[in-house]
Amino acid sequence: MYPSIPPHIAHMKLKANLPQFFMADEIKLQILNEHALTMAQLDQSHNTELPAEVDNYHNLFPLEPPPANPLQKSNIFGYPTSCFKAVNVKDGMTYCLRRIHGFRLVNTKCMPLIDMWKKMYHPNIVQLKEVFTTKAYGDNSIVFVYDFFPASETLMSRHFSNMPAPVNGYSSPFNVSMNGGTPQPANNGLLPESLIWTYVVQLSSALRAIHATGLACRSLDPTKILIYGKSRLRINCVGISDVLNFDNSQGNPLALMPHYQQKDLYALGNIVLALACNSVMSLQRENLQNALDLVSRNYSPDLKNLILYLLTNPNRPRSINDVMPMIGARFFTQLDAAQLRGDVLQNELAKEVENGRLFRLICKFGAINERQDFSLDQAWSETGDRYILKLFRDYLFHQVDENGTPWLDMAHIIQCLNKVDAGVPEKVTLMSRDEQSVIIVSYAEIKRCFESSFSELLNSGHPQGYS
Amino acid sequence: MYPSIPPHIAHMKLKANLPQFFMADEIKLQILNEHALTMAQLDQSHNTELPAEVDNYHNLFPLEPPPANPLQKSNIFGYPTSCFKAVNVKDGMTYCLRRIHGFRLVNTKCMPLIDMWKKMYHPNIVQLKEVFTTKAYGDNSIVFVYDFFPASETLMSRHFSNMPAPVNGYSSPFNVSMNGGTPQPANNGLLPESLIWTYVVQLSSALRAIHATGLACRSLDPTKILIYGKSRLRINCVGISDVLNFDNSQGNPLALMPHYQQKDLYALGNIVLALACNSVMSLQRENLQNALDLVSRNYSPDLKNLILYLLTNPNRPRSINDVMPMIGARFFTQLDAAQLRGDVLQNELAKEVENGRLFRLICKFGAINERQDFSLDQAWSETGDRYILKLFRDYLFHQVDENGTPWLDMAHIIQCLNKVDAGVPEKVTLMSRDEQSVIIVSYAEIKRCFESSFSELLNSGHPQGYS
Repeated sequence: MYPSIPPHIAHMKLKANLPQFFMADEIKLQILNEHALTMAQLDQSHNTELPAEVDNYHNLFPLEPPPANPLQKSNIFGYPTSCFKAVNVKDGMTYCLRRIHGFRLVNTKCMPLIDMWKKMYHPNIVQLKEVFTTKAYGDNSIVFVYDFFPASETLMSRHFSNMPAPVNGYSSPFNVSMNGGTPQPANNGLLPESLIWTYVVQLSSALRAIHATGLACRSLDPTKILIYGKSRLRINCVGISDVLNFDNSQGNPLALMPHYQQKDLYALGNIVLALACNSVMSLQRENLQNALDLVSRNYSPDLKNLILYLLTNPNRPRSINDVMPMIGARFFTQLDAAQLRGDVLQNELAKEVENGRLFRLICKFGAINERQDFSLDQAWSETGDRYILKLFRDYLFHQVDENGTPWLDMAHIIQCLNKVDAGVPEKVTLMSRDEQSVIIVSYAEIKRCFESSFSELLNSGHPQGYS
Repeated sequence: MYPSIPPHIAHMKLKANLPQFFMADEIKLQILNEHALTMAQLDQSHNTELPAEVDNYHNLFPLEPPPANPLQKSNIFGYPTSCFKAVNVKDGMTYCLRRIHGFRLVNTKCMPLIDMWKKMYHPNIVQLKEVFTTKAYGDNSIVFVYDFFPASETLMSRHFSNMPAPVNGYSSPFNVSMNGGTPQPANNGLLPESLIWTYVVQLSSALRAIHATGLACRSLDPTKILIYGKSRLRINCVGISDVLNFDNSQGNPLALMPHYQQKDLYALGNIVLALACNSVMSLQRENLQNALDLVSRNYSPDLKNLILYLLTNPNRPRSINDVMPMIGARFFTQLDAAQLRGDVLQNELAKEVENGRLFRLICKFGAINERQDFSLDQAWSETGDRYILKLFRDYLFHQVDENGTPWLDMAHIIQCLNKVDAGVPEKVTLMSRDEQSVIIVSYAEIKRCFESSFSELLNSGHPQGYS
């Protein structure tokens, strides 16, 4: 129904003389871009191999380019996978579907783990919504449904995209990056330490929540971490390993989790080391000592100690809680940044909410002005209070300059509507179309005409959602 | 110009059948309430003793009730004070002005401290904007100008309002509390420990930033801490003590700050203890041991240790950095909450930003429909493309049911406008007013008519802020 990119984005720019009323350009473009990506649809006239519907989801749209070899297996999951956005027919919301190709679910004892994941709501985890098996793709597939984060990319594609490793998140060909992109590396080509700590804090927070429930992430990897905006992370693909690699030999599905939690912490160490070296090559065993030397030379002892704690001494039990003291006062920085982001957003929201009010107001005028007849009165919209409102409508929208040329001024419309809404005593001069009569009324009087006319309509009719 | 409470708030409620388009009620009401409080003006016909203008500020509006005794001095500052909001004539923004009555500034050596405060931008500090002396009140006064936070109250009024201590923040008589008010105390009448830690983290973050610059707060007190929403704090009135109690005996104005920083930490201890006992009485020397016993019985050892660290052993130098390990993993909770708040706000913003788009769209229709004449063509708005748009306007706004009764449906208007904006191929049946002819057009065709008509106006006229 919608074209893939709404046209109002393509040529959007803020006029210099607009009042401080609409949102700051950057946030607005980001939001509209996310909206556009959420709304994007395949042209059905093109031949695609995607089914029209899978379980309760329709309007499938691929989020990754097709693999060169359709049998190519995910390094992490050991099966071919693919990723789509799709609309749930029940709630109309867009979700991200990750399909595991050719997987037949035989053992449902893992399902209690899935139920635990579905209850996990955390700002640094992509929430798992549901899991279903399907033959809609022509094979046995299992599909994991997650919240959709438009305009995300993976930590892999953001920071390690020159590496030959496969990109299994939502990758860039289908996502326009509007977020300022990769931060500029410092002069030495390395990432700023503050950025690495931002990531450490977020990943630690997510792992802490996961481990506290008794679960483990099991697939912590740069390709399975989404990043959006400048530095916001979410752990992706939770629950998949719990199904695909379920070990039936244990009675309790949580029995092996402490082991996997240790693996999560080791994986966290690898990610931090790769970020500090700005290369996933650093993780190869023969490069490890060189990588640690690089960290020592360029970063604080805290960062090196964190990496050593997570990567060395494999037999020592680790806990995510031990990471906290190494983060130390950097928590304050993260918290301050998160609070400031909230304040900026609230400020923008305060500006935008006014638009909703003006929009409703102008719709009410629309319901009154030029209404053909009302209660068998053909001239209702031309007489009495409505005549004032008709002349005010002309004043609002049909301003001309001294040569009769249209004068289109958004600020004029906003100001006038605000004055009517506030019912101020200020006077306005309205002129009849034949220029033979002039009426001087206050905005308060226009407001009274407006309210009495609209309530006439309201009381007679079926109001739906005007308030 | 505006009445004190805009009427659109008074009777606002969300209709059940409105699409998920406008903001969640609660945030919206909070924002509109803050807007209303920012806009509130005194009725100039009432006799007030406020000057019409003070320095660059006008539209003064008191934020505190007048004191019973006009000579009553602030416990903290030692002078009578009063507090107003006012509009800066240069930038049109509303600020909070705190006037110190009867203070004559003789020594300007404290001004470097004021400059440092003006540069302090922190999410838990009310920013000082400027300081000026004035005779506009008929005496020598000094005025401290801060950012204005409408609908704030003080920590004192939120939690200790049954106490006889004076309330020197923005107090409730002039502020409608829309924020859910005081959290329910736990069963034993005490505040939940998590709330106290929320406060500790924020105050620590602010003190850490202040102390890091070499400054000290010097007036940390429940009456000088603003709270808004459920638990967001900002330290208020910074810089006042630095001017009022400036000690000229030291060459360097920062020389005594380490001493005042120690006092800040002691003041923080007092605040935490009072919160934990839910009473400022606990701070009286003879009650101290009882108060500490109460904390031991009801709260974690961490909270008691924090209080002991801050309040006992007066000769041991303390540092705000030592507070951090006692906060420990509670940082994660605070950070998660701040991130979630940002996500909710961004989500609401994404919904609201659509209103701005629809508002602009409908204003463009307004500029076309019923325009009296254009380029000497009296019938411009009635002919050609515009005739389609006229009939579409009727379809949009003037729906009636089978009895001819008005059918006012906001969702209908929004849907139709979205379809025009997207230019979808879906068809719509438009009927002439005499019901003699019926035109079936697609929304795409309406969009084409709309764009060509509007660009005719644009090209001839003076567009201001349409985009």
